[in-house]
Amino acid sequence: MTLTLGDLAERTGAQLQGDAAIVIDGVCTLQDGRPGRISFLANPQYRKYLADTRAGAVILDAAHAADCPVPALISGNPYVTYARVATLLSETAPAALGVHPSAVVAADCRIDPTASIGPLCVIESGAEIAPGVAIGPSCVIGRDVRIGADTRLVANVTLCHGVQLGARCLIHPGAVIGSDGFGLANESGRWLKVPQLGSVRVGDDVEIGANTSIDRGALEDTVIGAGVKLDNQIQVAHNVQIGEHTAVAGCVGISGSAKIGAHCMLAGGVGVVGHLEIADGTVVTGMSMVTKSITERGVYSSGLAAMPSDQWNKLVARLKRLDDMARRLQALERTLERKPDGKE
Amino acid sequence: MTLTLGDLAERTGAQLQGDAAIVIDGVCTLQDGRPGRISFLANPQYRKYLADTRAGAVILDAAHAADCPVPALISGNPYVTYARVATLLSETAPAALGVHPSAVVAADCRIDPTASIGPLCVIESGAEIAPGVAIGPSCVIGRDVRIGADTRLVANVTLCHGVQLGARCLIHPGAVIGSDGFGLANESGRWLKVPQLGSVRVGDDVEIGANTSIDRGALEDTVIGAGVKLDNQIQVAHNVQIGEHTAVAGCVGISGSAKIGAHCMLAGGVGVVGHLEIADGTVVTGMSMVTKSITERGVYSSGLAAMPSDQWNKLVARLKRLDDMARRLQALERTLERKPDGKE
Amino acid sequence: MTLTLGDLAERTGAQLQGDAAIVIDGVCTLQDGRPGRISFLANPQYRKYLADTRAGAVILDAAHAADCPVPALISGNPYVTYARVATLLSETAPAALGVHPSAVVAADCRIDPTASIGPLCVIESGAEIAPGVAIGPSCVIGRDVRIGADTRLVANVTLCHGVQLGARCLIHPGAVIGSDGFGLANESGRWLKVPQLGSVRVGDDVEIGANTSIDRGALEDTVIGAGVKLDNQIQVAHNVQIGEHTAVAGCVGISGSAKIGAHCMLAGGVGVVGHLEIADGTVVTGMSMVTKSITERGVYSSGLAAMPSDQWNKLVARLKRLDDMARRLQALERTLERKPDGKE
Repeated sequence: MTLTLGDLAERTGAQLQGDAAIVIDGVCTLQDGRPGRISFLANPQYRKYLADTRAGAVILDAAHAADCPVPALISGNPYVTYARVATLLSETAPAALGVHPSAVVAADCRIDPTASIGPLCVIESGAEIAPGVAIGPSCVIGRDVRIGADTRLVANVTLCHGVQLGARCLIHPGAVIGSDGFGLANESGRWLKVPQLGSVRVGDDVEIGANTSIDRGALEDTVIGAGVKLDNQIQVAHNVQIGEHTAVAGCVGISGSAKIGAHCMLAGGVGVVGHLEIADGTVVTGMSMVTKSITERGVYSSGLAAMPSDQWNKLVARLKRLDDMARRLQALERTLERKPDGKE
Repeated sequence: MTLTLGDLAERTGAQLQGDAAIVIDGVCTLQDGRPGRISFLANPQYRKYLADTRAGAVILDAAHAADCPVPALISGNPYVTYARVATLLSETAPAALGVHPSAVVAADCRIDPTASIGPLCVIESGAEIAPGVAIGPSCVIGRDVRIGADTRLVANVTLCHGVQLGARCLIHPGAVIGSDGFGLANESGRWLKVPQLGSVRVGDDVEIGANTSIDRGALEDTVIGAGVKLDNQIQVAHNVQIGEHTAVAGCVGISGSAKIGAHCMLAGGVGVVGHLEIADGTVVTGMSMVTKSITERGVYSSGLAAMPSDQWNKLVARLKRLDDMARRLQALERTLERKPDGKE
Repeated sequence: MTLTLGDLAERTGAQLQGDAAIVIDGVCTLQDGRPGRISFLANPQYRKYLADTRAGAVILDAAHAADCPVPALISGNPYVTYARVATLLSETAPAALGVHPSAVVAADCRIDPTASIGPLCVIESGAEIAPGVAIGPSCVIGRDVRIGADTRLVANVTLCHGVQLGARCLIHPGAVIGSDGFGLANESGRWLKVPQLGSVRVGDDVEIGANTSIDRGALEDTVIGAGVKLDNQIQVAHNVQIGEHTAVAGCVGISGSAKIGAHCMLAGGVGVVGHLEIADGTVVTGMSMVTKSITERGVYSSGLAAMPSDQWNKLVARLKRLDDMARRLQALERTLERKPDGKE
């Protein structure tokens, strides 16, 4: 889409600096700037590229406005304004309306006429698809699934029976929502399956990444709050609750019945043990394992940083003798205490 | 399905306490009890909800029977009895028999007439599908695959050529069984593919979670024993063997040619290095890495628990100076030994 | 396929020892040797099986040639020669040419007549499929995707719009290439989506494992170099660059804008933090976390090996008192320094 810089200022609430009439038809980086495209300066690390940028315009904060060699949009939060501008510029024609003839749709579904069902989708009995929903190719929508308005399934998404998605969600390929939880009862060494009778409820404005899986609840539902963002390759076990506007990075695993607060951030590779609670606003850094409830918001860690392996191996060898060191330290303390001149 | 409490007692072998004629049509939690539904008490943490439960009946052990305010099923293992009861109550009508007209089925497959093949499945040449098998929508069944009786593929499952599944397995969406192992030979810095010529053999009563992948063997087969339960997002590399009735939680990675014993439990996020053996009955706790064979059953760990990041960072800083501490400790010991009055 | 040992010697450049005329129709292990099949000795651990092998022939190096009881192919790198031999012997008939009638193909695609499109694939508008490409069942090829010559998608692969694959790539089931990166701008606690406008460029001879996901770039492209090998269950975030001939094992997560060098090896479960660089030829061992740039090639680690849990718990308890130990050690040092006879 093509807009003038003035249009963009008006539609994003940013302050215009320079020629309102210049035409913008895309985005670019500062260092790889191109005329007709708009860039942004959010990370101070990139300030060095500002003076020489060949971008048609730049989004930046007031503090950098004077240094900008080209027209600018001035914003208190340049990255947010960039997100809005890029969204406006990348708006594509809506998907074809209606149901592709190759899709297999049960007779008793309710599909809004403004929804779009892609080729080779399967929509099972009782499903309800709201206005503006776009379902890409090869998705499977199970029995009695409900999908809220304007939600988009990119392609090859599987929603198991009874799953509910809110409005304006975006679900990426390979995501599986509503698979059985890992519920097993042990009888004399053999595992007996415990039927998973809950479902999954996903709030509005949720994004779910590629190849992420969310299990249905055992008895109650697994619940993903509004505005939650899940990256790729995440495992969400049965009965988990994730509070609103929490962001979870790739490769995180959340065990059964864990209750994650709102506005949390879990970095990549984090593991969360089951049956615990994490306070609102908690941040967990990469590859840490949360083993008990976190009752106070804050930043939590247990991930170790890689170092040259010879150093690491030496450190681990020392670590294994830590108990011995502690005993020797204690022995020294006793020796010094016992000696008359060791007293202070 | 609807059954009387007396029916449930009879069909699960539990002892009836109270009115045999009450009708049960579902399950519920103790705290969210509803008339006509049956709950259970297995975890002592939930005992507090027993006195006031509004459930129609409760499954519990003999020790709690006297405290139960409603009719009860008494069992030595209430969770196992609950699993049985919930299975009976959640039995659904069998899937439609036969092959959906939209499925693409090779002419030379052998599909039992009591099997069900869902819409938009692909069944390639030579596949054999046993009685009672239910294959959900959009599954791909490769050349010469064999699927045992009453096994169910939920949806969007991929079985590569030659894979064999036992009877009564349950495979969740996104699972991939029989993809090539990661076999590479290095020739002057470039990787040459080593053909993966084995297959995957899965025993009876195996459950495989969403988006889990199991690679085919390089020369021999990858083997998943009977009764094994694999959660979601698991990686099983080529030539791995997993013994019977072992349970593996989400996000576990098992490297090539590892041989896991029977009745093991691997918790979430565990990594297992290749070419090693793990003894029967071994338990590995969350996010631990098994780097050498475990010859004695027991519980093994190396996962670290998250703590406030400032504490963690201080601990890591100390850790990096552990070598220095060890040297200083030794120096002190030498000093004290050398001093006449340091001798004991 | 069936070849004589002489043919195999000629086609792989190996040196023949023994009867050139014997016919080989498959491969086998040394210990499970079978007449008419060829085995190999690369790992010295298996030398013990050589004397008694019943294989029809063995591939080995010159040092072991004299001990080989059967005809042999002698090679400086027996595993590479085995890879070549196994590839020759496992060559299968090419897939059926042309587009399966059940595939849904946009009118304006360019599909080479020597390419093969499997059943129930979706090929969207503007896609270009080069000669010799084989696309297995149920793949989704997005708008404007380009696939290079002789590349193979096994089954159920999703390529999002605009993705480019090189020649001779092999992509396994469940892989998703070109899903949106995890780009979010925070506005007063809510996440605003940042459009992901780059794509993914994959070089020649790349292998991508089952259920692996590679996100498209935010502005520039995510780039996977020629000869890269990615195992299963891997997450590659937006704007990542992976240098040529790097191998990445299962369950690795690579965060946004990380730049991995050429000829690196990342072992299973490794995590790489975003916005850093890793030097060519770097090796990272299992379950380590790379938190800052690695500027010198070498081997790097931070993964901990599992031990019996009681030992581990004791070690962790000591670890938590490390700060206390350090202080006590320092106190002892001061005490000894202060004492006249503690001076050296």
